Amino acid sequence: MPVPLREEIRAADGGAEGRAACCSLYHRAVELVGKRWTGAMLSVLLDGPLRFSEIKTLVPDLSDRLLSERLKELESEQIVERRVHDEPPVRVEYALTDKGRALEPAVRALQDWAQHWL
Amino acid sequence: MPVPLREEIRAADGGAEGRAACCSLYHRAVELVGKRWTGAMLSVLLDGPLRFSEIKTLVPDLSDRLLSERLKELESEQIVERRVHDEPPVRVEYALTDKGRALEPAVRALQDWAQHWL
Repeated sequence: MPVPLREEIRAADGGAEGRAACCSLYHRAVELVGKRWTGAMLSVLLDGPLRFSEIKTLVPDLSDRLLSERLKELESEQIVERRVHDEPPVRVEYALTDKGRALEPAVRALQDWAQHWL
Repeated sequence: MPVPLREEIRAADGGAEGRAACCSLYHRAVELVGKRWTGAMLSVLLDGPLRFSEIKTLVPDLSDRLLSERLKELESEQIVERRVHDEPPVRVEYALTDKGRALEPAVRALQDWAQHWL
């Protein structure tokens, strides 16, 4: 008899029996990238690094405070990295890491869905 | 000269010039399916219709109140439909509509990302 996966639980009643329960990693991913503004920021950063003011231009209605907060969260999750170019004038850019760029299929799939269904 | 898409704006400064701004439809999609618990509910419903109690079993820690609220939201967006089977005992099931099932590529891509990176 195969050992059940950690993500699987057996339900007591009919239809849910043998069905995979929602995986906690996936749940965490939704909470992370589905946060207000985060999805929008990821989509514009997929086209390449941007400065703070450039992200603001490309994501209308996003306040300085929230953008700054969201960038810090994404940095702490190693999805975005802050790059400081030292030569004057000093220039700070935000770029997706490998982990961040790996979100591209999910972002593109949701963009396709939005274009078709919303 | 090509007419710019509605979703494109031209930024005043360097790096953002000519880059597509975040599309409002995509932004709405993220806010909709990225809401706390919604992503988890979609993932378990992708395997087929479920009763209220079955969703609760498959999405641990989700309260009755929140599940009920989220189901109403998804119904009003035509992502989930409520099916009442009249023969006794009366049975109520929740199923994804075509619009809901069309979210599968996005959900699967995010699941893959979560498995690999989180």
